[in-house]
Amino acid sequence: MRTIIAATGSHIPEVVVPNEHFLEHDFHGSDRKRIGKSNAEILQQFEAITGIRERRYAPDHLVTSDLAYDAARNALESSGIDKEGLDYIIVAHNFGDVKARSHRSDLVPALAARVKNKLEIQNPRTVAVDVIFGCPGWLQGVIWADAMIRAGDIRRAMVIGADTLSRISDPHDRDSLIYADGAGATIVEARDTDRGILAHSVRSDTLEHSNMLRMGHSYKDEAFLEALFLKMEGRKLYKYALQTVAGSIQECLERAGVGIRDVKKILLHQANGKMDEAILDALYGLYQMKPPDNVMPMTISWLGNSSVATIPTMLDLIRRGKLKGHTLAPGDAIVLASVGAGMHINAVVYRVP
Amino acid sequence: MRTIIAATGSHIPEVVVPNEHFLEHDFHGSDRKRIGKSNAEILQQFEAITGIRERRYAPDHLVTSDLAYDAARNALESSGIDKEGLDYIIVAHNFGDVKARSHRSDLVPALAARVKNKLEIQNPRTVAVDVIFGCPGWLQGVIWADAMIRAGDIRRAMVIGADTLSRISDPHDRDSLIYADGAGATIVEARDTDRGILAHSVRSDTLEHSNMLRMGHSYKDEAFLEALFLKMEGRKLYKYALQTVAGSIQECLERAGVGIRDVKKILLHQANGKMDEAILDALYGLYQMKPPDNVMPMTISWLGNSSVATIPTMLDLIRRGKLKGHTLAPGDAIVLASVGAGMHINAVVYRVP
Repeated sequence: MRTIIAATGSHIPEVVVPNEHFLEHDFHGSDRKRIGKSNAEILQQFEAITGIRERRYAPDHLVTSDLAYDAARNALESSGIDKEGLDYIIVAHNFGDVKARSHRSDLVPALAARVKNKLEIQNPRTVAVDVIFGCPGWLQGVIWADAMIRAGDIRRAMVIGADTLSRISDPHDRDSLIYADGAGATIVEARDTDRGILAHSVRSDTLEHSNMLRMGHSYKDEAFLEALFLKMEGRKLYKYALQTVAGSIQECLERAGVGIRDVKKILLHQANGKMDEAILDALYGLYQMKPPDNVMPMTISWLGNSSVATIPTMLDLIRRGKLKGHTLAPGDAIVLASVGAGMHINAVVYRVP
Repeated sequence: MRTIIAATGSHIPEVVVPNEHFLEHDFHGSDRKRIGKSNAEILQQFEAITGIRERRYAPDHLVTSDLAYDAARNALESSGIDKEGLDYIIVAHNFGDVKARSHRSDLVPALAARVKNKLEIQNPRTVAVDVIFGCPGWLQGVIWADAMIRAGDIRRAMVIGADTLSRISDPHDRDSLIYADGAGATIVEARDTDRGILAHSVRSDTLEHSNMLRMGHSYKDEAFLEALFLKMEGRKLYKYALQTVAGSIQECLERAGVGIRDVKKILLHQANGKMDEAILDALYGLYQMKPPDNVMPMTISWLGNSSVATIPTMLDLIRRGKLKGHTLAPGDAIVLASVGAGMHINAVVYRVP
């Protein structure tokens, strides 16, 4: 008996924000000084490194739990699964609901309770709970649902990753340009098969790493004096991810008994295109190989970094045939892996049933 | 093989705030109008219903993750358990770290990562993750740790409940007088025994209940215009808890195969003394019995409602012989049960190993 992915859904926010949107922004550095480059130059450099051309923001009237609800509805409708038969709804996020321009996180009630309310689920046995684990939060929710399924506690869970990073983006910090909004939902369930989730690995590096992504004040001193924005030590983060993610995936593959040549797709959290390519090279380098063509689907150029939403959204797009050149067939082994605030890294090896 | 509680610790904040502290407060109702009673009358009524005479607040220089760290350190030191041998650190809370007078939740990195950092744990295999589930969050963390242990994924986890409700208390709302700060930590582990955690039950009522505890603005219009405070629909909440908690405990006892006469202690989340007594009467009423004397330890009179911290703190006090008249002996069956924002209810039946 294993845990399989029975359904997926996603919400891609409607507001398209191209890089040119930021041409008139007043960018400052972490030293609060104005960046000594033209915005055109900043944006060109940004796109070259991250691969991001545009990102999606939620319109003002929606909050994270609305996006999560829409992705959940989408997963239920496309699969025909009865919402009243869900044993758990797990929502991973990082900031709760943040109303437009409020700069305030609201977590009470937790987002899963809000999503369950919006879905109008009556069954009190559908437990609605939130997980906070940085960008790897959605995959952590899947890992927990899998443990509950293998322990025999539950049969079916919806795991949602949803966030609105636009609401905690400092308009004076060029790092904020990577942030995006989105939601992805996945329904996992027990199945009598030897396919499904084969293994997972998780690590938390907190000794020197817990401050690499943190909340801080605006880089422009006079603006938003008290509001908190997501701040990133980009270089350190890049170095950490490059040193650590590949090994975590290798460990997970070994636990699963799956060879690297058997891997059809690697769905990696997308915070920076160049970083993802470097991680992929490092992974295959561990096996003295070059990455095969087309093994790593990318959405960052048009979806940006939507944190917990990135992987489930990508998975949903692939399953619906909406990510050109990427398909999944029964028997395919795939890797899902993420890295984010904590710092945390997790990976799952999954064989399509 | 079952999950047992191997160690406990707690942090009881140093600032004692008696009811008289609020004698000069300017209390308004949810209609924004000034309450038409003297503060002496309000406070007398408050104490009669809730049983709260004083509560504890964290001093200004500490945040929730500091309290959580101290409770964790306390559990490790008193047990001699090696911190590097923890497979998980799960922190349940509701507001993240909220600095004094900031009125802002900060969740990045998640609190478990901060606690692991403060504990100076080097082991990257100690996964640090947060759970958000209202006041029942700590017990939910225990339920998840138990599932991972029974699934064979882990051997030992620290589960912490920590919150600083004083930081989201509206000084103009008399309901805020129940809120307190605190932290409790528990280390659970796999043990070859038929005692330990025997069963659990969880329910989430979100259809008409998800707004009974929510964030809202101050009841005094001109104050803290944009800040968010915890707001409570006290009467509805009381009615809901009275109708639902007893049945959840009964269900859990049935799953555990434990008779009500075998139950030595019931550790109930404490938000309101009268409500707890009514729930206890309702529970024993299901068995056509009156509650036995001294079955329900109470800390609310001097600790207030510290949300996720209440039950683990109470458990720690009992284990250390610091709660007069309450002890636990090998073989004793106890019930842990909580109700809170969501609304959620959970219960665990535990036999002391």
